[in-house]
Formats: sequence, structure tokens, C-alpha cells
Amino acid sequence: MAPPLEFYFDFASPYGYLASLQIDAIAAKHGRTVSWHPFMLGAAFKATGQSPLPDQPMRGPYHIRDFARSARRFGAPFRMPSPFPFVALAPSRAFYWLLEERDPAAAKRYAAAVYGRVFGEGRPVGDPAAAAEVGAAIGIDPAELTGAIQGTAIKERLRRETDQAVARGVFGSPFIFVDGEPFWGHDRLPQIEEWLARGGW
Amino acid sequence: MAPPLEFYFDFASPYGYLASLQIDAIAAKHGRTVSWHPFMLGAAFKATGQSPLPDQPMRGPYHIRDFARSARRFGAPFRMPSPFPFVALAPSRAFYWLLEERDPAAAKRYAAAVYGRVFGEGRPVGDPAAAAEVGAAIGIDPAELTGAIQGTAIKERLRRETDQAVARGVFGSPFIFVDGEPFWGHDRLPQIEEWLARGGW
Repeated sequence: MAPPLEFYFDFASPYGYLASLQIDAIAAKHGRTVSWHPFMLGAAFKATGQSPLPDQPMRGPYHIRDFARSARRFGAPFRMPSPFPFVALAPSRAFYWLLEERDPAAAKRYAAAVYGRVFGEGRPVGDPAAAAEVGAAIGIDPAELTGAIQGTAIKERLRRETDQAVARGVFGSPFIFVDGEPFWGHDRLPQIEEWLARGGW
Repeated sequence: MAPPLEFYFDFASPYGYLASLQIDAIAAKHGRTVSWHPFMLGAAFKATGQSPLPDQPMRGPYHIRDFARSARRFGAPFRMPSPFPFVALAPSRAFYWLLEERDPAAAKRYAAAVYGRVFGEGRPVGDPAAAAEVGAAIGIDPAELTGAIQGTAIKERLRRETDQAVARGVFGSPFIFVDGEPFWGHDRLPQIEEWLARGGW
């Protein structure tokens, strides 16, 4: 069986949220699966000198308009969270804990719930309490989650995932590899579909 | 008749080149025309703090790969010019001289010839001699062109066009307005098609 598409994203990334709503369906149309990899985009920004889009002169206003326009295009709910940006350390750790202690499907359900709260409802998920609340809403014991994400091993896991992402050249969110071929940005999803259909070009 | 689409680009922009090969045909499918606006992207970079993509850590290697991949996707010739980047002052001035002294079609033919040399053949068009050579190849007297682009009025015209672009929020190349709606990037052409077809969303 062909290896999964690799989907890198940050939970504070609007375009990552939009991609998360579509990427599994796109892959499935071509008999493929997707492995999800939350990482800390700030680590890549240190290497590239970039910063969160909404803060940037000229680029900020364009992208704030475009986030909503891109969501509207396919009928996805969208609200900018406030405050923004926020550091998505807690939910990213929780994701890898679920991946290790439960299974990929549980981790993905959790990720979808985090993104739904962040950009569907406009409520940041940065601190451990918010990360646990999201878990509770899908049946994960909040005390267990809060305890788990304080463990050294899970902190190390997220650090390692982030380092590996940066080492592979991941500098934005979403960033998707299809059989090693890198695609950056939500607006590249049609090209990913085409790449899957044609087997590259 | 509906107003033309407004296509902003820098002659040293690979994605601007790719958009230049497609934008008129996309507009024509929907009964629309396109007004072309070369401008000095460096002026926008001063406002945004950005720099030419190929020089950037992480983003550079991705985009160098993507320039060629994006061209290959629809069978366009592509070669990175060397040296790169270069400052496209001379051909941008020549464009506005042709627009003022001849007509939009002549200016567009010249722009297409500039881009063809820059990214089709990989030969920069930065200095006045190169700008005149390109003109000569499409029947424009090189001495006349070289003289014209030294005039104060044409220098002022390009400066004004660039200032206006930045004032409108143009921070990249290509940057396209469809009835006031801004779209940044070559990979947004499919969205522009959809915007034209649906009348927005």
C-alpha cells in the first residue's frame, strides 16, 4: 500500500485549519491515507525570519480578508480567535499523547475538535485547561490529559517532531508531502489532487 | 463593459511570468480584458520586510523547486535567470513608454517578450541595453527606446505606478484585482477563474 500523505500543521494556523477539513477526503479519493503532524510553526519562523501573518504590514490585512474568503469558498465556518496568535503547545502535546496511548484515529478526532474550537468558534486553545476541555468534549478524561501533557516524554516527542519538520524543510502551515514531494499552503490542495491523479508531472 | 482585471507584476518575478502566460486567456473566457501594471516589487518589500524568495533560508529551496514544477505543470518553458534577482527598472520604464506612445497591445507584446527572455531563456533584462535588445526583436527602434527610458517623465510614471500599487496593498507578484477583489500569487489563478464564473462568493 502507498505510504500516507504527511500533513504538517500548527493549531494556530488558519490555513492549516482549512486544509484539515479537506485533506483526508482528497487522499481517500485516490486510495490514500494521511498522517497528521502538528508542530510548532514558531520554530520554523526562527529559521526563516517570518512572523504570524496577521501582524505583518500589508500582508496582514490581505490574509485576514483571505482567511474568511477561503473558508467561505467551501462553506466552512470561520472566526478569527482572540487573542491571536497563541502558542499551541498544550494541544500539540495532547495530540501526540493520544497518538501514543490511544491510536491515530483518536488523535485526529482530537485535532479536529481543537481546530473546530479555534477557528470554527474563534476560541484559542493554548493553555492546558483549554486543551483538556476540548478533550473532555470528545470523551477524554481531562485530568488524565492534563497530567499526560506535563510528562517529559511527551514534551520531548513534540520537540522531536518539530525538529524533524524543520529539518525536512517545513517552513509553513499547512505543509504536505506526497511521496516526498513538498506542497506549501492551503491553496495548493488542487495541485495535490492533480499530483495524486497524474502521479506527478 | 466590465472594467479590466488589473495585473500587477515585477519582471524579475517567476510567478509573475507564469501568470502572464495565462491571465489574458482566463479573463477572455469570461469576456474580460486585463490591464498590465509592471511595478518595482522591491518598493513593496521595503514596506513588508520581505526579500526575494530564492535568497531565503528554507523558503528559497522550496520555491526554486516550485518555480520549475509550476511551469512544468502546464508546459511552459522555464529557466532561472543568472544573475538573479536583478532590478527590472529599464524594461518597466520601457513598458510605460510604449503604453503612452504606442498602445496597450504594443506594451503587452513587449512585456511578453521581456518575460520570455528572462524566464523562458534564463537571461536577465535589467540594464537599458538588454531592454532595448528585447524591443528590437519585436520591431522597436533600440536607440529610440534607450533614449525614451532616460526621460524624467517616464521615470516619474514608473515611480507613480509603483507608489499606487503599494498604496493599494500590492505586496507581491503576481497580484491581481478582479473588480477590486485582491488575489495574490500564481496559484490563485484557479480562484480568479472561479470568482469570474460565480461573480464572487
